[in-house]
Amino acid sequence: MQDVFVVGAGQIPVGRGFDNPVDKMAASAIDRSLDDAGIDPLDIGALYVGNMTSGILSKRTQLGAVIAEKSRLTAIEALSTEAACASGSAAMRLGQMAIASGTHDAVVVCGAEQLTHVDKVAATKALASAADFDLESSRNETFVSLNATLMRLYLEKYGLAADSVAGFSITAHRNALSNPNALFHKEITPEDYCASRIVAAPLRLYDISPICDGAAAVVLANKAVVDSLGADNRGLVKVAASSIATMPVALARRNDPLDLVAVREANERALKQAKIERSQIDVLELHDAYTVMTALCLEASGFAKPGQAWTLARDGRTERDGDVPISTMGGLKARGHPVGATGVYQLVEAYLQLTGNAGPNQIRNAEFALTQNIGGTASTVINHILQRIQ
Amino acid sequence: MQDVFVVGAGQIPVGRGFDNPVDKMAASAIDRSLDDAGIDPLDIGALYVGNMTSGILSKRTQLGAVIAEKSRLTAIEALSTEAACASGSAAMRLGQMAIASGTHDAVVVCGAEQLTHVDKVAATKALASAADFDLESSRNETFVSLNATLMRLYLEKYGLAADSVAGFSITAHRNALSNPNALFHKEITPEDYCASRIVAAPLRLYDISPICDGAAAVVLANKAVVDSLGADNRGLVKVAASSIATMPVALARRNDPLDLVAVREANERALKQAKIERSQIDVLELHDAYTVMTALCLEASGFAKPGQAWTLARDGRTERDGDVPISTMGGLKARGHPVGATGVYQLVEAYLQLTGNAGPNQIRNAEFALTQNIGGTASTVINHILQRIQ
Repeated sequence: MQDVFVVGAGQIPVGRGFDNPVDKMAASAIDRSLDDAGIDPLDIGALYVGNMTSGILSKRTQLGAVIAEKSRLTAIEALSTEAACASGSAAMRLGQMAIASGTHDAVVVCGAEQLTHVDKVAATKALASAADFDLESSRNETFVSLNATLMRLYLEKYGLAADSVAGFSITAHRNALSNPNALFHKEITPEDYCASRIVAAPLRLYDISPICDGAAAVVLANKAVVDSLGADNRGLVKVAASSIATMPVALARRNDPLDLVAVREANERALKQAKIERSQIDVLELHDAYTVMTALCLEASGFAKPGQAWTLARDGRTERDGDVPISTMGGLKARGHPVGATGVYQLVEAYLQLTGNAGPNQIRNAEFALTQNIGGTASTVINHILQRIQ
Repeated sequence: MQDVFVVGAGQIPVGRGFDNPVDKMAASAIDRSLDDAGIDPLDIGALYVGNMTSGILSKRTQLGAVIAEKSRLTAIEALSTEAACASGSAAMRLGQMAIASGTHDAVVVCGAEQLTHVDKVAATKALASAADFDLESSRNETFVSLNATLMRLYLEKYGLAADSVAGFSITAHRNALSNPNALFHKEITPEDYCASRIVAAPLRLYDISPICDGAAAVVLANKAVVDSLGADNRGLVKVAASSIATMPVALARRNDPLDLVAVREANERALKQAKIERSQIDVLELHDAYTVMTALCLEASGFAKPGQAWTLARDGRTERDGDVPISTMGGLKARGHPVGATGVYQLVEAYLQLTGNAGPNQIRNAEFALTQNIGGTASTVINHILQRIQ
């Protein structure tokens, strides 16, 4: 298996009400990633695109070929992949396998999503297509209602106060303040959280990541391409792990809805591949689409005991100077969650952290970054570990 | 790069008006492929699903996790991929890379599509999402109208009679007669062709593949798994090539709409990987969604000179005992074209041919089979070459 390296990253600012259709957003992010890598587009062998809703909401499919044509990657191998909100990381998985197998020397991985050109009800319904059809989406469940159920069960089981997971949201908003590509630049306080409207009890507005648009891309390459590009001062970043696990889609079909088995499984596989312990993770970009999901992910990943994740925020451990820094550029909550793009935004941010290019949000001396991207209520979980090796 | 082998295949009969949603069809095909391979589901590392329209027409996404759960592949790595009508072969590409890279020892590749639970207009519009949005689909072009344009240009350019490409359709229907999994079991004559209604001039009904439902699956494995499964009398089939090329999506953006550059490109890459000449291909499962597409593919692939493909059918060379046997189990025209499943049906049929299990449709002593699967009007082209090596 060939080693896989990240050699460039590009993103457009997450936004709402963009005029740009998904292919143009994607092309912008791709072209930025190519420029960042300093690589000739003719040296790119394939493009892998992550997207969830373009067919449903924009009547556009075959995004691989469409986006290849709109960027500088004409005639290239190109495919699109979908794993609900983990589609971006699914694309990364394809890129990783393409390089690892020796199929290509360099590829581009792009995640892109446009959600705000339709009304929120239409977008919410499109996203709900990732829920179990028979037991959930056909009964009008949405990911808001499903996560409200999870949060209610969580607070009840552990006897927690209604605002116990607010800290994750507050941290995310604070980190987004200094990320120019984040959707929100607005600090929130515990009081703001408690004053925010209840969207679906017990979920408040500030528990929920926003519906928005965006696109991000990374360039992956093998060692020969890395050497040909020449050294620069940002160092070398390797893909140390790539893992995927699934579990039953419907909450009702799980033994314990609060036990995210697929998160645990994907995490263990990733740590094993990277040959590291959990404690060596310096940057944790997890799937904070909902505050309760942050808590459950931290617990399933072993960063906290069941029912205890909220104490990490309380004790400042999830801050940038803590030992479990999460959502370092704002996370899904405040950078924004353009679903199929999210996984690639996480990877771009991990790359910026490992190369010392995260600006005011820099985690010092970061060596390992874990991205954890989730489809559904953790029915698909895709993890990557990036490692700075020079 | 690890060698990749096909060790089992499964399909359900192509049909129309199935009650079964896409996940259940897929699970049936997958379970048949696992039984055919005689492999323990616990030895499967990943599931890659090809599908195009489930999100649009059935409000179901995240098919990887959904189908894994419905089949016997619980908790497995699972993803879905989309490249319009080439989605099935896109899934095969992922499977091939997963084994070649050493990521997994054995994987399942499945293509599945349900199109007939909605009316034909809705299905046709969903399929048109793969056309260029600005220049084609938003201007009410469909793949019927786009292929009508291609056929008109083709007949005009070479001064051919209106029924010159009928032979491809007649051959496909004849071959489907003895394929129990084909949609149509109805021989057609040149007179039937000429009497069939004009759908979009000059395209007649018998130029066009049907809208239908289906699912097919193959099991891929590395050599160690092949050895552990033990020998049986059907021989060993290797994936000798896997190639993808793209070109501008809109016909209007191509220098010559009758020159399918991506078909030529994908073909050349595949032959080079397999280290064979075109003349060594014993079975050619090409993308006969439209008779004109068959002609253009044969020409772009070098099996005929421009404007001359029709002579292959006239001279019997595309028959099962000819030197360029096409659509040996009925092809897209008569086995049927459940779009995201089609590429995997092609691979299943190629596998049956190479293992001597094609029944009355058997091509004798077939060693190399080429599958050619197309998205859009050849904007994405995905080729695989299977090789019998024992």
